Amino acid sequence: MKPVKVGICGLGTVGGGTFNVLERNAEEIARRAGRGIEVAQIAARRPNPKCDTGATPITADIFDVACNPEIDVVVELIGGYTLAHELVLKAIENGKHVVTANKALIAVHGNEIFAKAREKGVIVAFEAAVAGGIPVIKAIREGLSANRINWLAGIINGTGNFILSEMREKGRTFPDVLAEAQALGYAEADPTFDVEGIDAAHKLTILASIAFGIPLQFDKAYTEGISKLTSADVNYADALGYRIKHLGVARRTESGFELRVHPTLIPSDRLIANVNGVMNAVMVNGDAVGSTLYYGAGAGMEPTASSVVADLVDVVRAMTSDPENRVPHLAFQPDALSDHPILPIEACESAYYLRIQAKDHPGVLAQVATILSERGINIESIMQKEAEEQDGLVPMILVTHRVIEQRINDAIAALEALEGVSGPVVRIRVEQLN
Amino acid sequence: MKPVKVGICGLGTVGGGTFNVLERNAEEIARRAGRGIEVAQIAARRPNPKCDTGATPITADIFDVACNPEIDVVVELIGGYTLAHELVLKAIENGKHVVTANKALIAVHGNEIFAKAREKGVIVAFEAAVAGGIPVIKAIREGLSANRINWLAGIINGTGNFILSEMREKGRTFPDVLAEAQALGYAEADPTFDVEGIDAAHKLTILASIAFGIPLQFDKAYTEGISKLTSADVNYADALGYRIKHLGVARRTESGFELRVHPTLIPSDRLIANVNGVMNAVMVNGDAVGSTLYYGAGAGMEPTASSVVADLVDVVRAMTSDPENRVPHLAFQPDALSDHPILPIEACESAYYLRIQAKDHPGVLAQVATILSERGINIESIMQKEAEEQDGLVPMILVTHRVIEQRINDAIAALEALEGVSGPVVRIRVEQLN
Repeated sequence: MKPVKVGICGLGTVGGGTFNVLERNAEEIARRAGRGIEVAQIAARRPNPKCDTGATPITADIFDVACNPEIDVVVELIGGYTLAHELVLKAIENGKHVVTANKALIAVHGNEIFAKAREKGVIVAFEAAVAGGIPVIKAIREGLSANRINWLAGIINGTGNFILSEMREKGRTFPDVLAEAQALGYAEADPTFDVEGIDAAHKLTILASIAFGIPLQFDKAYTEGISKLTSADVNYADALGYRIKHLGVARRTESGFELRVHPTLIPSDRLIANVNGVMNAVMVNGDAVGSTLYYGAGAGMEPTASSVVADLVDVVRAMTSDPENRVPHLAFQPDALSDHPILPIEACESAYYLRIQAKDHPGVLAQVATILSERGINIESIMQKEAEEQDGLVPMILVTHRVIEQRINDAIAALEALEGVSGPVVRIRVEQLN
Repeated sequence: MKPVKVGICGLGTVGGGTFNVLERNAEEIARRAGRGIEVAQIAARRPNPKCDTGATPITADIFDVACNPEIDVVVELIGGYTLAHELVLKAIENGKHVVTANKALIAVHGNEIFAKAREKGVIVAFEAAVAGGIPVIKAIREGLSANRINWLAGIINGTGNFILSEMREKGRTFPDVLAEAQALGYAEADPTFDVEGIDAAHKLTILASIAFGIPLQFDKAYTEGISKLTSADVNYADALGYRIKHLGVARRTESGFELRVHPTLIPSDRLIANVNGVMNAVMVNGDAVGSTLYYGAGAGMEPTASSVVADLVDVVRAMTSDPENRVPHLAFQPDALSDHPILPIEACESAYYLRIQAKDHPGVLAQVATILSERGINIESIMQKEAEEQDGLVPMILVTHRVIEQRINDAIAALEALEGVSGPVVRIRVEQLN
């Protein structure tokens, strides 16, 4: 089947990431979507040094893409309300599907855009508009569709969360951390959208609409920024058992919906209170499912591209598949499954926690270290407890670096054969998950 | 449009929950799906006391449902490999879509079932088979479709996680907690499937297949249970900065895929290390998105039903909508949006953190307490610091119970007018998010 032809408008951070992911994972993506996705045109004012666009045709005029009869899907990644608005309406008018990462556009002009898209029978997809790479729009719109959503609450601005995390962890002041965030490129030269909660309110407006089934109403959202927060309050909150987060909250009540972005104290044992740095997380509470949480990178070149490309795959699956089998059972098309083997446990790699019961006489540690080192097993940490019991056995606890399991099995056999070791060695696998 | 007719086979915990959610949220679900979902027949050996099935026809024979020409979708919730296998094949043969929560069935017979479903052009959906109410299959299969998945790791058995959480938090032994879990109904009389990792391996097999694009290969999964873990190791792990979790890990390597379920040490500052009790969480790492995490209830009557019903909504959307507009932009059908209003912030409800700079003379606390109590504002906690600075001002920190914001605004105006209070009162909202 012919590839679907995509036009990317805007080759900045997200546009460049989208191009790169489509190129690098072309085969993986085609195995999922059932046909290729080809970038047939790019509109950009200047090249992106992180992006080798090769022979792909480039135009300086975004409307060239919206009017190109070759293009099936227009990807809007230029940002802002004005040009982006015109571009998306023009693409829809020309019968093209649209994928966008533009939260401001959707929050402010979404009702109009969706009406036009329905009229023309085209898809407008916007997963990347909220929480970057986290598929939270899909989770709420499809995954939780059984539920009456009671409330949702999200850390949906990475810049703000980075600032608050630094204030708490390092006792720094707001202006100090903001200056660093600007130097690191996390915050814009004009940080108002981020620190005053406007960006978060755009995203919250979208989340609330899909959770509650209400039109987009950005003008009704309440926003309060983090620029007035003091270290004193961050510390008092800590002492009371809370963390301060810049939270977007949407809640259903008898009299109406609450829609508000503001600094918020959250009990420090909640998972979401421990989401730090530039990471995002959204909690969603439904009447059937209870509380759920979705966590990941809320911004950045490839995390945001991850959602843009997922929307493209959705579009291609909808264009291509018969409606009764839109998403393949095992995610990949049945004739595109891989025969890469599943490994036996002995060939799997892990770090290991080992507990050895050593008889308390000198030399055991040296023997243990030799056995491990002869098998290429490196020790990350070691802890030796005093003999606790009458038997005089000393628990020796080791954590190793990652190694193939067969080597640990060999080492354990050798350790258990040592004169100075009593009984079996306890072995538990260790994963860093980072 | 006529409602879609569903037959529920099995009216145990999940079947009863599915019936109840479909009844209670019928209107909300129809607003999302575009038409009603009607339970037209139930197959059950005995009634479920938590479920008022009213006039719904009930049969004792599940094959009545699979052969009922009225039924569009068969929901298989009887569990097990044998009868469920026959039932699902019969339903597919009769051209019916199938929704199932049966991980054992999918992990062991999925390849055969999916081939049959493709032949007949019907949907087989199984979101509820993994991690209960968490839409993690949808997240991987659709939300992360741009990514080459590097690895995933999950706490996907609630019983095991409850046991490990209790062992750590309360210093209890494995057999002691297992007995309690059985008494509470978390663990079966024969707990082998849960504590030896077989249930988790079923789920991991499914997750690995949709992440990597490989056929289901349950027989290749390595499983190691938690029954031999001792409190000593739990404590040593803690001392080293780790938590022990019963983790399912699937990882891509050059030579093949690792697929393994075993007790695992995880650094205690990872979010997933802090997932306790019967809750589930899955981390998924992709080359574009980085690490993401999905958290929620992994079992139970209505959380599992949440996923079963979401699958039903997916089926109905696919059966009903034109393929180019399968999922409505705002989750609900455009003519079914609600006009329930968005509230002004003064009408929103929250708890509040207040910091008052009190002049250090007696009586201020009493005046503060009176002002709050006159406005129906209850105090949850109070902290008074010693005067730190030369100005003799004493910071008084209060956390209130939940109340409408207008009352706090009134109280703050009154507090700021007090002789004994200096400068503005700092107010930050508090959310418990539980």
